[in-house]
Amino acid sequence: MKPRQFLSLLLWISAATAVGAVHAAKPQAEPVQPVAPAKVTDRARVALGEKLWFDPRLSRSGFISCNSCHNLSMGGSDNLKTSIGDKWKQGGINSPTVLNSSLNFVQFWDGRAKDLQEQAHGPIANPIEMAFTHELAVDTLRSIPEYVGEFRKVFRSDKLTMNEITLAIAAFEETLVTPNARFDKWLKGDKRAIDAQELRGYQLFKTAGCVACHNGQNLGGMSFQKMGIVAPYQTRNPSEGRAAVTGKDADRFNFKVPTLRNVALTYPYFHDGEAATLTEAVDVMGRLQLGRTFSKQKNADIVAFLHTLTGDQPRIVMPILPPSNDNTPKPRPFE
Amino acid sequence: MKPRQFLSLLLWISAATAVGAVHAAKPQAEPVQPVAPAKVTDRARVALGEKLWFDPRLSRSGFISCNSCHNLSMGGSDNLKTSIGDKWKQGGINSPTVLNSSLNFVQFWDGRAKDLQEQAHGPIANPIEMAFTHELAVDTLRSIPEYVGEFRKVFRSDKLTMNEITLAIAAFEETLVTPNARFDKWLKGDKRAIDAQELRGYQLFKTAGCVACHNGQNLGGMSFQKMGIVAPYQTRNPSEGRAAVTGKDADRFNFKVPTLRNVALTYPYFHDGEAATLTEAVDVMGRLQLGRTFSKQKNADIVAFLHTLTGDQPRIVMPILPPSNDNTPKPRPFE
Repeated sequence: MKPRQFLSLLLWISAATAVGAVHAAKPQAEPVQPVAPAKVTDRARVALGEKLWFDPRLSRSGFISCNSCHNLSMGGSDNLKTSIGDKWKQGGINSPTVLNSSLNFVQFWDGRAKDLQEQAHGPIANPIEMAFTHELAVDTLRSIPEYVGEFRKVFRSDKLTMNEITLAIAAFEETLVTPNARFDKWLKGDKRAIDAQELRGYQLFKTAGCVACHNGQNLGGMSFQKMGIVAPYQTRNPSEGRAAVTGKDADRFNFKVPTLRNVALTYPYFHDGEAATLTEAVDVMGRLQLGRTFSKQKNADIVAFLHTLTGDQPRIVMPILPPSNDNTPKPRPFE
Repeated sequence: MKPRQFLSLLLWISAATAVGAVHAAKPQAEPVQPVAPAKVTDRARVALGEKLWFDPRLSRSGFISCNSCHNLSMGGSDNLKTSIGDKWKQGGINSPTVLNSSLNFVQFWDGRAKDLQEQAHGPIANPIEMAFTHELAVDTLRSIPEYVGEFRKVFRSDKLTMNEITLAIAAFEETLVTPNARFDKWLKGDKRAIDAQELRGYQLFKTAGCVACHNGQNLGGMSFQKMGIVAPYQTRNPSEGRAAVTGKDADRFNFKVPTLRNVALTYPYFHDGEAATLTEAVDVMGRLQLGRTFSKQKNADIVAFLHTLTGDQPRIVMPILPPSNDNTPKPRPFE
C-alpha cells in the first residue's frame, strides 16, 4: 500500500469508528469493493490456457500440473501447509489461491513476479515444483500438432515459446474470479445477504483495523506488510519474504497481504500454513498485527464474516488434452 | 473368455477370412459392438461419486485423488509407465484407463476385484497409492457436514461407510463410457465414418486374430490371456498376473486383456507400460501373441484402425469439494 492510500484508510477507519457501525454500512463508504465477473475477450486464448493449466506434461514427471497445487475444486489451493513437488519434495511456502489472483498488485508471497504471466514461468522450472525446463516444456508442446495449431490460431503466428505459453495461462487465470459472494451482495445493497453476526464481524473487521491491510476488491493483495508487527511471529519456515527480492533487511518478513476472498476454502493459513483454522488465524492476526486479543465471541463474529466472502467458484469443464505422439519428450518421473 | 466363446470366435474368424473382407463388414456379423451412452438412473449418487473421485482427502497426503492416476483429461489414465503414489512411490503396474471400465468382466489387471465397487476399496488403502486407511477415509468424510448430508440424501440412511463410499464412486465410474467413436458409427452403418486404410486395418485386426481377445463392446476386458503366447515376453516388471490371485502356476503372466477403446489416448501400453507407441504395441502383440510380424504398412493400417476407437470423452464439470473443518483429520504428506 502506498503511504497515501494508507493514510486515507486510516482516516476512513477513524471516521467509520466515529460515526458508528450502522452508518458505516453505506455502500459508497465501504473499504471493500465487490468482485466483477470476468470479461472474456479472447475465448480461444482462455481455452488454450485452460488446457495448459491442466496439462501435467509441463512437469518433468508428467504428473504435476498447475492445478495440482492450485486445485480449482478446492478454492484454487491445495489445502496443505506447503505443497508437494517433483519427487515429493516439500515446497517452501504455502501455495496461495489462484482465485482472484489477477486482482493482486504483484504475484507470489514476496511479489517477485509483476503479473500473472511472469508468475507462470516460475513453477514449471522450479526444481521443487514441476522441475522441468522451459526448453523441454516448449519442445513438448511443439511436438503435439493440436497444440501447435491452437497456438497458431490464438497468436496468429508460428511462435510457440514460453511467452505464448504464459500469456495463455495468464489469460485463463484472469477468468478465475469469484463474484457474488454473499458479502458482495450486501455491498451492492441486499441487506439480507448477511446476518447480524456476520455484519457485527464486518464492523469489527473494520474498527479493529484488519481492513487497513485487507481492503479493496480482493481484501488484500495490494501491499506488502510485515508478518508480526506488534509481536514477532514464530515459525520454523525459513522464508524471508520481500527481503529475498530487494536484499533489504527492512523488508525481512514482509509478505504480500493474502486475499481473504474464499478464505473459508483456502485453509491452512499464513505463508507457512501453520494456522489450521480461521479461528486460529484471526487470533494470531489480532495479537501480532493489531496488539489485540479478540474475545471468543468477537473472534467468532469475524470468522462468520469471513465465511461470507466465498464467491461463485469458477465453472470448469475439464479439458480433453491432445495426446502425445512418438516425438513428444517422455515424462521422467523416476529418473 | 469361456471355451465356448473362444470356439465361436475362432469359427467366426475362419468364416470372416473365408468370405473375404467386404462381406465381413455387415453390422450383424461384427465381433465388436458399439458402446452405448451411459444411462444415469440416480443423478445424486453419481454427483456424490464424482466429488469423491476428485477428492484428494481420500489419501493420506491430501494430494492424491482417483483422478491423479485415472485422469479424465487424458483418456482416464496417467500416461506413465507405472503410477506415482504416496511419497512418490512407484506403482507396480500400468494404471489402466477408467473409461469403459464398467464393461470389463472383472477389475484390475489380475482380476482381483469382481466389480468397480470392490475395486474402489483398493487404491485408498494401498500403501504405494493413496496410502490411507479405510477408517480415516470414513472419518474424514464423516467430519464434513456437506458430505454427511449428501450421503444421507443418496442412501436414505445415516450409514457412511466404505460400502457407501465405493458404491458412489462406482456409480460415477459407470458413467465414464465413450460412445460415438468413429468406428462405432461405422458399425452402425455410416460407411464414411472410417476411411479405406482404417477399414483395411480393421479387416486385418480380424483376420490376423487380434479380435480373438480384443472383442465385444470394449474390444477386450472379457478374458484373461497369457502375455507371451507364441514367444515369452521379456520384462523387468515383477507382476505375476492372475497367478497372484489364484496361486496357480498355470495362471502366471495371465492378465486381463485391456480394452482398446480410446487406446490412442492411453499410452504407454501393456501391464508394464513398456510399449511407448501403438506401432510398437502392435508389433509386439503380433509377434508374441500371434506369431506374426506385421509389415510396416500392415502395422500402420492396424494403428490407423485403433485411432478410430476414440469415443466422446466424458464431459466433466469439476466439482467444488465441501471444505474441511476443525474436526477433519489433517493430511499428512510429509510424516
